[in-house]
Amino acid sequence: MSERKSKRVSESRTVMTEMVMPNDTNPMGNLMGGNLLRWMDIASGICAGKHCEAHVVTASVDHVSFQKPIKVGDIVALEATVTRAFRTSVEIYVEVFANDIKGGNARRCNHAYYTFVGLADEGKPIPVPPVLPLTEIEQQRYDSAPRRREVRLILSGRIKPEEAKEIRSLFEGMS
Amino acid sequence: MSERKSKRVSESRTVMTEMVMPNDTNPMGNLMGGNLLRWMDIASGICAGKHCEAHVVTASVDHVSFQKPIKVGDIVALEATVTRAFRTSVEIYVEVFANDIKGGNARRCNHAYYTFVGLADEGKPIPVPPVLPLTEIEQQRYDSAPRRREVRLILSGRIKPEEAKEIRSLFEGMS
Amino acid sequence: MSERKSKRVSESRTVMTEMVMPNDTNPMGNLMGGNLLRWMDIASGICAGKHCEAHVVTASVDHVSFQKPIKVGDIVALEATVTRAFRTSVEIYVEVFANDIKGGNARRCNHAYYTFVGLADEGKPIPVPPVLPLTEIEQQRYDSAPRRREVRLILSGRIKPEEAKEIRSLFEGMS
Amino acid sequence: MSERKSKRVSESRTVMTEMVMPNDTNPMGNLMGGNLLRWMDIASGICAGKHCEAHVVTASVDHVSFQKPIKVGDIVALEATVTRAFRTSVEIYVEVFANDIKGGNARRCNHAYYTFVGLADEGKPIPVPPVLPLTEIEQQRYDSAPRRREVRLILSGRIKPEEAKEIRSLFEGMS
Amino acid sequence: MSERKSKRVSESRTVMTEMVMPNDTNPMGNLMGGNLLRWMDIASGICAGKHCEAHVVTASVDHVSFQKPIKVGDIVALEATVTRAFRTSVEIYVEVFANDIKGGNARRCNHAYYTFVGLADEGKPIPVPPVLPLTEIEQQRYDSAPRRREVRLILSGRIKPEEAKEIRSLFEGMS
Amino acid sequence: MSERKSKRVSESRTVMTEMVMPNDTNPMGNLMGGNLLRWMDIASGICAGKHCEAHVVTASVDHVSFQKPIKVGDIVALEATVTRAFRTSVEIYVEVFANDIKGGNARRCNHAYYTFVGLADEGKPIPVPPVLPLTEIEQQRYDSAPRRREVRLILSGRIKPEEAKEIRSLFEGMS
Repeated sequence: MSERKSKRVSESRTVMTEMVMPNDTNPMGNLMGGNLLRWMDIASGICAGKHCEAHVVTASVDHVSFQKPIKVGDIVALEATVTRAFRTSVEIYVEVFANDIKGGNARRCNHAYYTFVGLADEGKPIPVPPVLPLTEIEQQRYDSAPRRREVRLILSGRIKPEEAKEIRSLFEGMS
Repeated sequence: MSERKSKRVSESRTVMTEMVMPNDTNPMGNLMGGNLLRWMDIASGICAGKHCEAHVVTASVDHVSFQKPIKVGDIVALEATVTRAFRTSVEIYVEVFANDIKGGNARRCNHAYYTFVGLADEGKPIPVPPVLPLTEIEQQRYDSAPRRREVRLILSGRIKPEEAKEIRSLFEGMS
Repeated sequence: MSERKSKRVSESRTVMTEMVMPNDTNPMGNLMGGNLLRWMDIASGICAGKHCEAHVVTASVDHVSFQKPIKVGDIVALEATVTRAFRTSVEIYVEVFANDIKGGNARRCNHAYYTFVGLADEGKPIPVPPVLPLTEIEQQRYDSAPRRREVRLILSGRIKPEEAKEIRSLFEGMS
Repeated sequence: MSERKSKRVSESRTVMTEMVMPNDTNPMGNLMGGNLLRWMDIASGICAGKHCEAHVVTASVDHVSFQKPIKVGDIVALEATVTRAFRTSVEIYVEVFANDIKGGNARRCNHAYYTFVGLADEGKPIPVPPVLPLTEIEQQRYDSAPRRREVRLILSGRIKPEEAKEIRSLFEGMS
Repeated sequence: MSERKSKRVSESRTVMTEMVMPNDTNPMGNLMGGNLLRWMDIASGICAGKHCEAHVVTASVDHVSFQKPIKVGDIVALEATVTRAFRTSVEIYVEVFANDIKGGNARRCNHAYYTFVGLADEGKPIPVPPVLPLTEIEQQRYDSAPRRREVRLILSGRIKPEEAKEIRSLFEGMS
Repeated sequence: MSERKSKRVSESRTVMTEMVMPNDTNPMGNLMGGNLLRWMDIASGICAGKHCEAHVVTASVDHVSFQKPIKVGDIVALEATVTRAFRTSVEIYVEVFANDIKGGNARRCNHAYYTFVGLADEGKPIPVPPVLPLTEIEQQRYDSAPRRREVRLILSGRIKPEEAKEIRSLFEGMS
């Protein structure tokens, strides 16, 4: 398998803006969590496709919590950036901001890590280009990616907790 | 705050069936992960509303992984059941099954834990009824709920890892 | 044409749950009748596909009346079961229940009989498996199906009223 | 209750045109019956609202059969006209035509009778204006409306078959 | 290229009716301009396809202004007619009318000129039939079409203002 | 009427990204022009709302031409910026870019000028903040805005061609 050339984070950065419509909300007028998860998946998937230069499918989403309600008529901006590539997959960080229709009450609502697998046209996984982190925050997210990946492997049952070297180090000092 | 009467899991069990339409899929004809997350959120939310007898909003979704592709034209069945109630929130377990349009190739696709907060009509959190587990699997999910809750509190930054008693016990023997 | 093995009603029973969203309602906030007809068609069609183990197309819907209004935010549960198979078609009974978002005001709203034709992949009608009724209500719906079928054949102009043996017996005693 | 002035059929005639999109079709590329029922309900409801000069809700749809398939990309034209008014309800006749995107293969697909109840703003049924039939076909549909109404009252259980004077006359000569 | 037979305007006249649903409106309850532009494009495109007896793609829309607000629950009727054909394109005139759900407050809202290119099945532009104007207004729109076409060619940069013979004559008397 | 403080173009710049889904396309798999007009209206409207810090309604869209087809599965990015404010209205420039799902075949597809009117909560037009152009291209679009406005006033019949001072100067040298 040929080595692929590293790509910068900025090359695949994706911004998506949505207006919260009545059908996106529950009877109390709040954006339903599932609709936000869907928008995050689309923004992340477009970002992953650009980085991988390939079709991609969602492999997982990590824990997402919803704290600040988003109301009907609000404007939601999603920003997705690649953090790190593994052999045939990429991790995408997506952040959600909202403001009211007049541009007021701007706030950071939540964020999530999605992973995608790159696919060749016939549907087989393919190697994806490495990520070249440049800014401090890009480097931080790059460095912490293996730990998040270990959590995913445990949670999806593909490794056992005792095999999780990255995570154990977090708890070892405490026991 | 008055004590609320326990409710059985079967009282709020919710089954939802969806046919995968072209607009739900990516250009390779696979159901997009975000659409499945949205359906899981709706099924879980209806289940939570029935258990709480109240409006509910999504508080979080735990790690979800997608392993088996679901294709356009497939039938997706989602089954949501309450596992345990905390003071003003409930944890819902949702399981996803798919089969093709002719009822063939039946398979269990994935599952997730969503949490919801019960709200009074004016939008304030309210106490929710306890869950009364009856079957063995209901009891198992009830018993393991506090551990999942601790993970959520760590991941959303509301407690520190060293405060997580339930989880530490999983790692203590290993170090 | 080879004889096909009978199938039980429970093998294809289909439950679908929908939350009534703003776009599903008229300006008075009531679910529009046409949207309910569409949901009934989908639930029935999925049930018919499972029973026939084939693609199906809607052949007809019998008279449907709408008596109890369903409001925005209500939860609608549809339950579809096969009643009887004819040579290349099946009759499906679909029943509609609603409750408010808090699980209250539960009510049976209406019901309908849809018929579907089973199709082979190339689009030609194919023989469908017979239905094996087990419970008392399954047997009742099985026994009354030929009479409903006769009404359909008259109403779609494929037989003349004087050829309708099953129905005439209903009126004969009165004249 | 004051007498309302008669209105002509042409005053509320409603034409609706739809292009069949991928999400309107089943995996074989045929318009799903339920989507056509929904479009017929909307066209009929708009026609009923114009005739009644009031909000309306669907009260019933009579037997509908689907014979000619409509394909993705086809253009569907629906034409709805009022046939007769009863005290607080109107019967609407809706006819469906289709042709391919190039205007070819024009065909009459099917038709249905929908009934609607006129509602005052506070939601109570209100008297609706009588229909003044002018053309021969308008007169025919006006004259046959009471018979269809009787069938509906029987099928929805509001009268007993032996009370159905209009229908019995159809069968009396035969027994 | 063979000469094609002229067609009357009435042969492709297209009427489309839409009910304004909550998701079509902004938070003030007004139909969003972009949704009206979309409906106008669909009505015009269906009309162009009928006239050209071919697939068509939108080539342009001329200036559209929005003066009278259309509210949620209003009924919008669009009427599209062909005005003139050029070699491989047609100009369509589309007019928008609205009234409230009770048929009251009828008003002409706005209008636009869309142009479409006729395409053969393999996607290449094809000659389209000439238009045969019959009524006075059809003749007026036919005669003024070349002037509108010149404006389009200038605005899309395909001719220079000084090449626009039809338009210059409008300004020459004034300078 | 109080003077409002000037705002920079960058303060309201809005980026929107859409994936072209099957239902957005015609039977040849091309994004329908009307859907692009709708997305342009949403992106521009969000930008206008941010600049005006108010509700806005679409007042007009100038001539738009469609040259490069956009296919199902393509990614469309829209970028909207304010060019100039008039008393109670703003002009927004929106540019459309597309690339395929793998990030390839990047191209500038088209652009348009939309105008919006700022509205107070009770629906009356309100004064909007002036625009402060900084870059060369911002200054160019600012300077040419009055000419585009004059064209709009002529085309919507609010001024006569002979009153259009800005435009006449373009043609005067030629006659």
